[in-house]
Amino acid sequence: LLNPRSVAVVGASDDPTKISGRPLHFLLRAEFAGPIYAVNPSREQAQGLRCYPSIAELPRTPDLVLIAVPAQAVLDVVRDCAQSGVPVAIVTSAGFGETDEDGRELQRKICAAARHGGVRLLGPNCLGAFNAFTGMYATFSQTLMSGFPTAGPVAVVTQSGAYGSHLAFLSQRRNLNIGFWVTTGNEADITVAEVLEWMVDRPEVQVILVYVEGVRDGAAFRGALTRARSNRKPVIVLKVGRSADGTRMAGSHTGALSGADEVYDAVLRQAGAYRAGSIEEQLDVGYVCARATPRPVRRLGVVTVSGGVGAHICDVAATYGLPLPRLPRPVQRQLHQMVPYASVANPVDCTAAALQDTALTSAAFRALLRDGACDAVVGFFSTVPSNAVFAQRLQEAMISGVAGYPAALLVICMVAGPDTISRYEEAGALVFEDPNRAVRAIAALGRFGESFESALDERPEPIEPLGPLEPRAYSEVEAKTLLAAAGVPVPRELLAHDADEAAAAARLIGLPVALKIVSPDIVHKSDAGGVALALTDIDSVRDAHDSILTAVHRVHPTASVEGVLVSPMAAAGTELIVGAKVDPTFGPVIMVGLGGVFVETFRDVALRPAPVDHSTARAMLSELAGAAVLEGARGREPADLDAIARCVVAVSRFAAGHGENLREVEVNPLVAYPKGQGVLALDAMLVGGTEEITA
Amino acid sequence: LLNPRSVAVVGASDDPTKISGRPLHFLLRAEFAGPIYAVNPSREQAQGLRCYPSIAELPRTPDLVLIAVPAQAVLDVVRDCAQSGVPVAIVTSAGFGETDEDGRELQRKICAAARHGGVRLLGPNCLGAFNAFTGMYATFSQTLMSGFPTAGPVAVVTQSGAYGSHLAFLSQRRNLNIGFWVTTGNEADITVAEVLEWMVDRPEVQVILVYVEGVRDGAAFRGALTRARSNRKPVIVLKVGRSADGTRMAGSHTGALSGADEVYDAVLRQAGAYRAGSIEEQLDVGYVCARATPRPVRRLGVVTVSGGVGAHICDVAATYGLPLPRLPRPVQRQLHQMVPYASVANPVDCTAAALQDTALTSAAFRALLRDGACDAVVGFFSTVPSNAVFAQRLQEAMISGVAGYPAALLVICMVAGPDTISRYEEAGALVFEDPNRAVRAIAALGRFGESFESALDERPEPIEPLGPLEPRAYSEVEAKTLLAAAGVPVPRELLAHDADEAAAAARLIGLPVALKIVSPDIVHKSDAGGVALALTDIDSVRDAHDSILTAVHRVHPTASVEGVLVSPMAAAGTELIVGAKVDPTFGPVIMVGLGGVFVETFRDVALRPAPVDHSTARAMLSELAGAAVLEGARGREPADLDAIARCVVAVSRFAAGHGENLREVEVNPLVAYPKGQGVLALDAMLVGGTEEITA
Repeated sequence: LLNPRSVAVVGASDDPTKISGRPLHFLLRAEFAGPIYAVNPSREQAQGLRCYPSIAELPRTPDLVLIAVPAQAVLDVVRDCAQSGVPVAIVTSAGFGETDEDGRELQRKICAAARHGGVRLLGPNCLGAFNAFTGMYATFSQTLMSGFPTAGPVAVVTQSGAYGSHLAFLSQRRNLNIGFWVTTGNEADITVAEVLEWMVDRPEVQVILVYVEGVRDGAAFRGALTRARSNRKPVIVLKVGRSADGTRMAGSHTGALSGADEVYDAVLRQAGAYRAGSIEEQLDVGYVCARATPRPVRRLGVVTVSGGVGAHICDVAATYGLPLPRLPRPVQRQLHQMVPYASVANPVDCTAAALQDTALTSAAFRALLRDGACDAVVGFFSTVPSNAVFAQRLQEAMISGVAGYPAALLVICMVAGPDTISRYEEAGALVFEDPNRAVRAIAALGRFGESFESALDERPEPIEPLGPLEPRAYSEVEAKTLLAAAGVPVPRELLAHDADEAAAAARLIGLPVALKIVSPDIVHKSDAGGVALALTDIDSVRDAHDSILTAVHRVHPTASVEGVLVSPMAAAGTELIVGAKVDPTFGPVIMVGLGGVFVETFRDVALRPAPVDHSTARAMLSELAGAAVLEGARGREPADLDAIARCVVAVSRFAAGHGENLREVEVNPLVAYPKGQGVLALDAMLVGGTEEITA
Repeated sequence: LLNPRSVAVVGASDDPTKISGRPLHFLLRAEFAGPIYAVNPSREQAQGLRCYPSIAELPRTPDLVLIAVPAQAVLDVVRDCAQSGVPVAIVTSAGFGETDEDGRELQRKICAAARHGGVRLLGPNCLGAFNAFTGMYATFSQTLMSGFPTAGPVAVVTQSGAYGSHLAFLSQRRNLNIGFWVTTGNEADITVAEVLEWMVDRPEVQVILVYVEGVRDGAAFRGALTRARSNRKPVIVLKVGRSADGTRMAGSHTGALSGADEVYDAVLRQAGAYRAGSIEEQLDVGYVCARATPRPVRRLGVVTVSGGVGAHICDVAATYGLPLPRLPRPVQRQLHQMVPYASVANPVDCTAAALQDTALTSAAFRALLRDGACDAVVGFFSTVPSNAVFAQRLQEAMISGVAGYPAALLVICMVAGPDTISRYEEAGALVFEDPNRAVRAIAALGRFGESFESALDERPEPIEPLGPLEPRAYSEVEAKTLLAAAGVPVPRELLAHDADEAAAAARLIGLPVALKIVSPDIVHKSDAGGVALALTDIDSVRDAHDSILTAVHRVHPTASVEGVLVSPMAAAGTELIVGAKVDPTFGPVIMVGLGGVFVETFRDVALRPAPVDHSTARAMLSELAGAAVLEGARGREPADLDAIARCVVAVSRFAAGHGENLREVEVNPLVAYPKGQGVLALDAMLVGGTEEITA
């Protein structure tokens, strides 16, 4: 697809501005090195090339065929490709799976014909692909009408062709050079995941920009992201469908089926990929990653010509979690002598004096790097670098200030034209206009750095498949038994079938006890009168047993009742919910959150694809908004975080072991006790089978 | 200051690039209409003007004097101004209140000299001011070296001069035309608030951009903002000091003292001003407000050439709370015939077909405005408008599509050069590059529109000053008595001084009751053994009374005890906290939040300057993250929101009535019952006096 030795365009037009004429035009103008063939039965020639009537009549079999004919004619061309032994074809035509049942049927047919003949397919309903290193422009993207990109370390893979074109144009303007560019459209065959798998291993590729509406092969996508992290290649994703309207729009666009958006969040986070919230953010982060090596940013230095903007940068650094260390006092005193009226602790405010006093600018950068030991320095210089009088001196001062610290990240915020920007970039600086965006991108680079460092530690133990689950709701007793075997601590409980058994159980367990109805048909046990708490003597246990059965029978006369569960009264603790569901795209997903309003009102939960290891489970707990409750805020005792994490790991491995056989498992509440005192699963729910079950 | 008939520059230099030479240079080059005087005892002439040795020797007294001499020489010049009857002087020199005690002393001296002589002062440590309508450039801002702004409807007032310069440059590049521009620096006399007060009433001014580090006159600032809203003039504020580092930096920059950052948030929100999070956001919102009339945006339409970006726009519209109505089915069917493979419900995806088929583009805009009744339409056109082949046709199609809907807001997202952008702007469209920023700015315009509409309703009743508070912590009984008089519902409670009184009180109130120690010296009553709950018989009341006194005496042997409070056991309900504090800048501030983890962990509170009226109190409740808990989420009964709001109003009026005499008042918990059943203040705390009190 990306390194063909020869390319044929089927449906080639003579008009280089038409959609069907542009690919030929681009290939010719870019001087693609191999043979270029035009195929069009209704023309003698196109753009100076002889037109062949069909693929079969070409002098040799092309490595890649671009099919630019109306949807109804595509199937025949794909069959021709198959017969001639073409290895890859691109179908740019629309009118397939993204439309209606007829379109989906047509897509299935071309897909079957291609597979049968050993042809790999890109598209349909895509904009093609290019390899800027070889001039292989198999696309009709109108963006290329104004020029070709400079081949470079950025790779783009996108389900939306128009988005890919837009990104290509903006990248070029930003000196962000794209080498490989692939649009996958409807993904009848080749997917974003498969392209990504290839890109992460290419030595030419340093950073990858991805646009997805919905991933078809979740495991391959996760695998490619994880491999990108091992290869230390940042992946920056714009995933649409966060909102209901966005999901609807995405679905009708390339026919993508997306799993839950929050699961994508979890998958990207787990694999260390960056999810951008806007086009601009994707490019900003792509820009720093293409021009600098990801490394943790633990100390940010700030040089400014405006104290006001300096204060603003402090605010945004706090927002993105970058700490600003203060310079040592003696260094502050030295700087203070150069700029007596300004703040020099970090930010170093050079004031308008920076225009005249170049020694001050040098000293500021040097102090932050040498004495402040900053990993990164951001300098705000407003329009000064484009001021003819001061520009040259300022740049020299900056360069001399950072000399000797080649590993430091240097980001300059300035308002300037492309020439000035290039000059700073050639000197090793990254250039932004807006300080908020600069700091956000520095923070993103730092996050990649941290993720690449920690990637080595993470290796969950292999999962052994667990026995099959039946497609039904399990009772609480069954669920707890299975979870206990998987390593989830449960209370010692006994199922009683009559009042005598309940009394005997209470004696064995020890008073006080709680009684609870056990029935797969009753979800809201308390509402049905199916719960009795804090029973302190044996007679009460007997009475409660019978009252429960009476109440339940009145509310749910047809419910099947397995018995009454006798449990010890658990001590109070911090309540959590730990559960797992199976996402249609990514499979089992583990969830943990604090109980009550945390989950109900704030939806404060952490998700990850299952299974997770202990350190990931700990990370999930600390990313909860209510983490302070567990960590011992306001005089509380810290909860047993390790025991909670062990339970999260156990449930995640239980879910992963059952895989597709699991529909949902939930421990709610899981009560956590103070550090060293463990956790207890007070209730549990388990549903097997992949289909929706009506309770 | 902004409309002088004559200007003198003291310390004028002959070199037009020097700080002390630029103001003269700018005034001359901008052809300021009145006399311009140069004052410099050590020169004969400067930039072609005769130099006078002092202000006293000028042929006439100038309306405005710009003082650009070293800090130590400023006092004498201010005295000269006073003697000559100069009405306003600008001091640009640094080295005053922003430095050390010597600088602060010098600032006090120039301030006193000015006040004594009737001279108003701008600065010191500022960059001056300009009026672009008259060419009155009393500033040395280096930004003006590359040209003067086109005078227009934007006014800028900023405490940071460099920030003001930066904003002026960016505004000019954005076709955002500044008329008045004032930098206030250390604000020895003239403040941001006073300048704002003037600007909001100027007919030339349509939108105001503000930068503040800390406001010196909170009441004037709030008053000016409120007046801006009445005048329907958007005010967009960048306030720094959100973070600890930002506050420190701001403090050392212009010596500003800022109140709590979250109080600024509340003040800006209450007055309908917009708080920008970045320079870019301030300009984006300023841009839409300068080019479009604020109006509520309740229906957003989207036209796109990329389905992918269309889906992204859906996501960002949801983020900023803008709803996308779907087009009626028959209209969708019509559009579907023009663009069969794309989504047309809204967003209308014109696909690459938009390039060729101009009727489609027209139809898309018309459908959204006519059939979708959209207030605003955002169109994403990538690079198409700058494509020589399609540009003209596309613009015509767009204009014909929106013809007949002059009130609709039209925002086009495109990547294009300044000429293309101007062409669209002249045709009435607003132009953005990034769709996320476009939608954010549209939402901001809509928020101004809503705020201007609702401004008429809001008129809290006048406050009557309440009797003075003593500078001490009041007991719970005292606090409840005062709050009850102010309209806060409290339980019927009685103070008992011995066990017999407690028993009698319990009989009167009715069992069960709770007992609680009353002492100004004991803050944590439960910890001290000072509380007994749910006492169901009279003997228990007697016992509990004595146990409380024994326990309290053991823990706090020296505490002064007023007695034991006997209260009815309140029914359970939803717990809230309602309180007020006095901010050093803005005075009394009212706070409401849900109790427990909502406040402790999520800091989920709503703040407003006090007093508030009922509708504002209701708005505060609905902006809580946990609002759903009050509104009846997940099968709960809705709480009595009106009763809660009445209590918030009462506490806010209590706080405002006491003003500076109050240090803190808090009802915690306020228990809210289901709709119609009211609220009850179970505990209350009241501290009088403005100084910190140690408990």
